[in-house]
Amino acid sequence: MRAPRPFRVMLDFDTGSLTPYTDSFERRLSDMAVAYEDQDAVAGLLSAGQDPVIYTGYDADVPHAADHLPFRTTIINPGVIGSEFFMTKGHHHRRDTAEIYVGMSGSGLMIMQTRDGHARSAELVPSAAVYVPPGWAHRTVNVADTPLVFLAAYPGDAGHDYESVERLGFSRRVHRRDGGYELRPAAAPDREFRAGP
Amino acid sequence: MRAPRPFRVMLDFDTGSLTPYTDSFERRLSDMAVAYEDQDAVAGLLSAGQDPVIYTGYDADVPHAADHLPFRTTIINPGVIGSEFFMTKGHHHRRDTAEIYVGMSGSGLMIMQTRDGHARSAELVPSAAVYVPPGWAHRTVNVADTPLVFLAAYPGDAGHDYESVERLGFSRRVHRRDGGYELRPAAAPDREFRAGP
Repeated sequence: MRAPRPFRVMLDFDTGSLTPYTDSFERRLSDMAVAYEDQDAVAGLLSAGQDPVIYTGYDADVPHAADHLPFRTTIINPGVIGSEFFMTKGHHHRRDTAEIYVGMSGSGLMIMQTRDGHARSAELVPSAAVYVPPGWAHRTVNVADTPLVFLAAYPGDAGHDYESVERLGFSRRVHRRDGGYELRPAAAPDREFRAGP
Repeated sequence: MRAPRPFRVMLDFDTGSLTPYTDSFERRLSDMAVAYEDQDAVAGLLSAGQDPVIYTGYDADVPHAADHLPFRTTIINPGVIGSEFFMTKGHHHRRDTAEIYVGMSGSGLMIMQTRDGHARSAELVPSAAVYVPPGWAHRTVNVADTPLVFLAAYPGDAGHDYESVERLGFSRRVHRRDGGYELRPAAAPDREFRAGP
């Protein structure tokens, strides 16, 4: 592999564009249907041919390899599925490593949890930096009526484990209520997540 | 060690404050006298009792340990020593790892070089993200009349090697010229830096 050289990108704090980017991604409802609590609402939308874009993003040109620090912008659109806000799939890292988030525009909530049942949340707003330590699964939720835009950076050998979150869910969900948001304990996935003797 | 929990800090993009911070640092001219080309100017200032603060910074509460991502804000004051702009000491990482810089306010220049003599520079302005790949020493220079403020993140086990930069210098220096800046080849340190058979 050619040794990477320094480079510069420009971030647009309003739109989330990262220029130039090398890869972009898009997650639609159908890419993460299992993530939402209200499966009737999911099925209703998809069967009606509606498959909204939940979030998009742009990756800087950084190798996913040890000692590198990939970074990306993400834009979560405003919206709800049932009453649950649009959100990312959420993930653990395959190797327990940290990740840093910086709010660029909009207003969101990060929900984080460990494999042994600890949970935390943090509001992600412009100029806030949220530190996700090693071992904390994390999901980001747009709790406002405008796009939520943020920057994230993580070690290049972190790896993304989406499967365990799909299987076990997060212990808390973020619903719209009275013009704001409410954190609710999750239903079935929570029981499995907290399963014990 | 207690397992670290997620936390949030607020960044002030104008002043560079990071709240709450756990450590702050301050580098005066006397802390980095050897870094400047014009040693007569350095001696003149210090012997006159002038020891300006070149830069300050604030560290988030992140362990300097593997799998963590420490981050900090840095504020480089405007000014020159002789005609050479205020700048950071500059460093290699002890383990060759990457670092990310994000411009918050002001206008600067990052100069970067490898141990085998490659050199690059990148202007650091608000909303610019500069990627320093593993193996690239880096120094940041304030080329404007206002404070240069930026955010930096790096792997917790990177380590900072300031000594080799002190000994060998950077191959290029940044001087004020005609209201802007000029990159000049360094004098003696450059010869040592590029020493070969």
